Amino acid sequence: MRDIAKIQVQEGRLRQDLLDLARFGEVPGRGIMRTALSDADLAARQWFKERMKEAGLEVHEDAAANLIGRMNPVVGPTDGPCIATGSHIDSVAQGGRFDGALGICAGLEALRAIRESGLLILCPLELIVFTDEEGSHFAGTFGSRAMFNLLQEGEMERSRGTGLPTLAQDLNRMGKDVEKISQAARSPSEFRAFLEVHIEQGPVLESMGTPIGIVEGIVHLGRYLIRVEGKTGHAGTTPMHLRDDALVKAAGIITAVNEAVRSAGPEIVGTIGEFQVHPGVINIIPGEVEMALDLRSIKKTTLEAVKNTIQEIVHYTGNARMETILTKGGVRMDPGIMEAIEISCRQRGISFQRMWSGAGHDAMTFPTQNIPTGMIFIPCLAGESHCPDEDIRFEDAAIGAQMLADTMVSMAFKGEK
Amino acid sequence: MRDIAKIQVQEGRLRQDLLDLARFGEVPGRGIMRTALSDADLAARQWFKERMKEAGLEVHEDAAANLIGRMNPVVGPTDGPCIATGSHIDSVAQGGRFDGALGICAGLEALRAIRESGLLILCPLELIVFTDEEGSHFAGTFGSRAMFNLLQEGEMERSRGTGLPTLAQDLNRMGKDVEKISQAARSPSEFRAFLEVHIEQGPVLESMGTPIGIVEGIVHLGRYLIRVEGKTGHAGTTPMHLRDDALVKAAGIITAVNEAVRSAGPEIVGTIGEFQVHPGVINIIPGEVEMALDLRSIKKTTLEAVKNTIQEIVHYTGNARMETILTKGGVRMDPGIMEAIEISCRQRGISFQRMWSGAGHDAMTFPTQNIPTGMIFIPCLAGESHCPDEDIRFEDAAIGAQMLADTMVSMAFKGEK
Repeated sequence: MRDIAKIQVQEGRLRQDLLDLARFGEVPGRGIMRTALSDADLAARQWFKERMKEAGLEVHEDAAANLIGRMNPVVGPTDGPCIATGSHIDSVAQGGRFDGALGICAGLEALRAIRESGLLILCPLELIVFTDEEGSHFAGTFGSRAMFNLLQEGEMERSRGTGLPTLAQDLNRMGKDVEKISQAARSPSEFRAFLEVHIEQGPVLESMGTPIGIVEGIVHLGRYLIRVEGKTGHAGTTPMHLRDDALVKAAGIITAVNEAVRSAGPEIVGTIGEFQVHPGVINIIPGEVEMALDLRSIKKTTLEAVKNTIQEIVHYTGNARMETILTKGGVRMDPGIMEAIEISCRQRGISFQRMWSGAGHDAMTFPTQNIPTGMIFIPCLAGESHCPDEDIRFEDAAIGAQMLADTMVSMAFKGEK
Repeated sequence: MRDIAKIQVQEGRLRQDLLDLARFGEVPGRGIMRTALSDADLAARQWFKERMKEAGLEVHEDAAANLIGRMNPVVGPTDGPCIATGSHIDSVAQGGRFDGALGICAGLEALRAIRESGLLILCPLELIVFTDEEGSHFAGTFGSRAMFNLLQEGEMERSRGTGLPTLAQDLNRMGKDVEKISQAARSPSEFRAFLEVHIEQGPVLESMGTPIGIVEGIVHLGRYLIRVEGKTGHAGTTPMHLRDDALVKAAGIITAVNEAVRSAGPEIVGTIGEFQVHPGVINIIPGEVEMALDLRSIKKTTLEAVKNTIQEIVHYTGNARMETILTKGGVRMDPGIMEAIEISCRQRGISFQRMWSGAGHDAMTFPTQNIPTGMIFIPCLAGESHCPDEDIRFEDAAIGAQMLADTMVSMAFKGEK
């Protein structure tokens, strides 16, 4: 084993990059407004391109506007499969400073530290900034899916609402030819592995006081629309026994959903976050409720079982129905990479926790191409994410970048005799 | 007893008036848009003023824009206390054709029928169109409250939202001097009785197949804001046991409120009609819910008891509180008038039902001045009101107008030797 201790990530440098990047799209009191390919995002990308070049990376932008920085071996072939890391610059509307941003800044710092270590790495390393991970245009993880020809027919021509730009429009604005989007496609054989550092976006690591989460997989996701119909009526003149109150029925569903999810154990979560009451007037009995249910589980069978239970609950509520909006299969991280991250942690005496990711990431795309993939989580304060208060400790960020650098190098050495 | 059978209301004439009035402010598919003192309301008032004059009434408009049509006795003093009826022309936004409109058209038809009967009525009769019963500007029953000096300080300067006109502005637009609003005030001694015909706005009469409801009183009203706080979090990454979901807590409150109201018996109704979830995003655990509770009861003690129970429920829900938005005392109709209406029904073989009004009306104002008051309800189809589908049977409207005419005359005769 080569001397991995020579690789030394610098917390101050990483911290400065994160703070500099957070200025792009910052709106006081409203967090970060850096939706994909907005002016703020384009400016941030330009800034980051310069940082990558400063770090000695060869930078290019592909047909899907992914930014790719490559560090080729000093000796040996430069066209071999690479070990890549990456994440995204774009934010949700009124988002935080670290979702995505941490992954690309940690990746940059890791590559700098690897170069500075003087260790001879015989394999190309890549840092990728993926386009529109958050799906501000239509669907998320656009850039990583474009990289493997996984776009859906017509999705670049769709937008999230009237007057909002499509990806095709925003790519055209950058001078890209969307007809040639397939030029972004790469062969899976170009990758030996993919690693992503990300904030946890949940409260688990912080509540355990553990700086590193080793992700075992990304959960299965199911989203459902539940519509409950009742009968409007005057709040003062309709006796209780003649009512069919959609909100009262919906309340029963909410309670039952919560119980169904909790009783299914810790491997599933369920949330009703979107909820509308019609007509929503103080003196009118609600005639209709629409709610969206989000279920996520590490086990597909658990998700299906809970979904079926909820379907029954809805079925037995009068005049209510449930339809599937979206399902997304989960993915498993590569056991060898999880092991490698674990060894990196042990070598530096860093405590870690294996865990599942309840949120989707670009790292989801790589396992579908049989590319060994791993994710490193660091805590985010109070579990808050996708909001102006999203925050981290910079020492955790440095630990994350260090584990990334150590793991990339250990994997690069693995293939060597 | 004089020959009340000579009084003969004409259903066809009443029907035509109702259909003509429904053209003012009619928006296809969206019902009646005739909010108080809007252009549509002003045009409808002008039209109705002409109808009153045609019927031989002396018409004037008071300082609060109430339209008053008076039929003085052919012989005898014209300055004695009157028997009055009335309701309103204004509608809620996207309202129906009969709420208010029925009362003034039925009043007009009743006075026409009384005049045509040739019966010698020695007491003045009045038909009043009250201004802004629906409270489109700020508070409801404006015109009847102005008539007895019951306006609240500053209420004419308030509006329901930025950019919406105040009553003061709309009265100025009509050339009224709002400084002289007190000129609308009349002495209670000017009234022997007040009667209002109205659609029930609920499903009771229709479900019983009964054309006439004799109102015993208008319920006590309490309105409360319930605010439940939780903690937002990512729907995928926050384990169930670390959640504080405001919507799940709110669902418990909705269910408990519904049970508390139902178990208190038929003399109370309770509704949560306004309900907002924040931030209301599919993948974020709800951090706050705001809901408005409307309680109405024929007994003040019942209303208080249920309110206290709900207050306890809210209190024992973590991070939830309840505050009073509004309370309004109920009123009782005059037993003598209820009896008179009942006799009118029996004389013509009309079935009737004594009942409470769950909604407020201008008729609420008169009992506060110790003026004997009564209300006559007719069924509305499917209990629907304040909506485009609000509907009636015209034969029921004619029965209502007939009972009004008969009762006004029987009361006019009552004082005579």
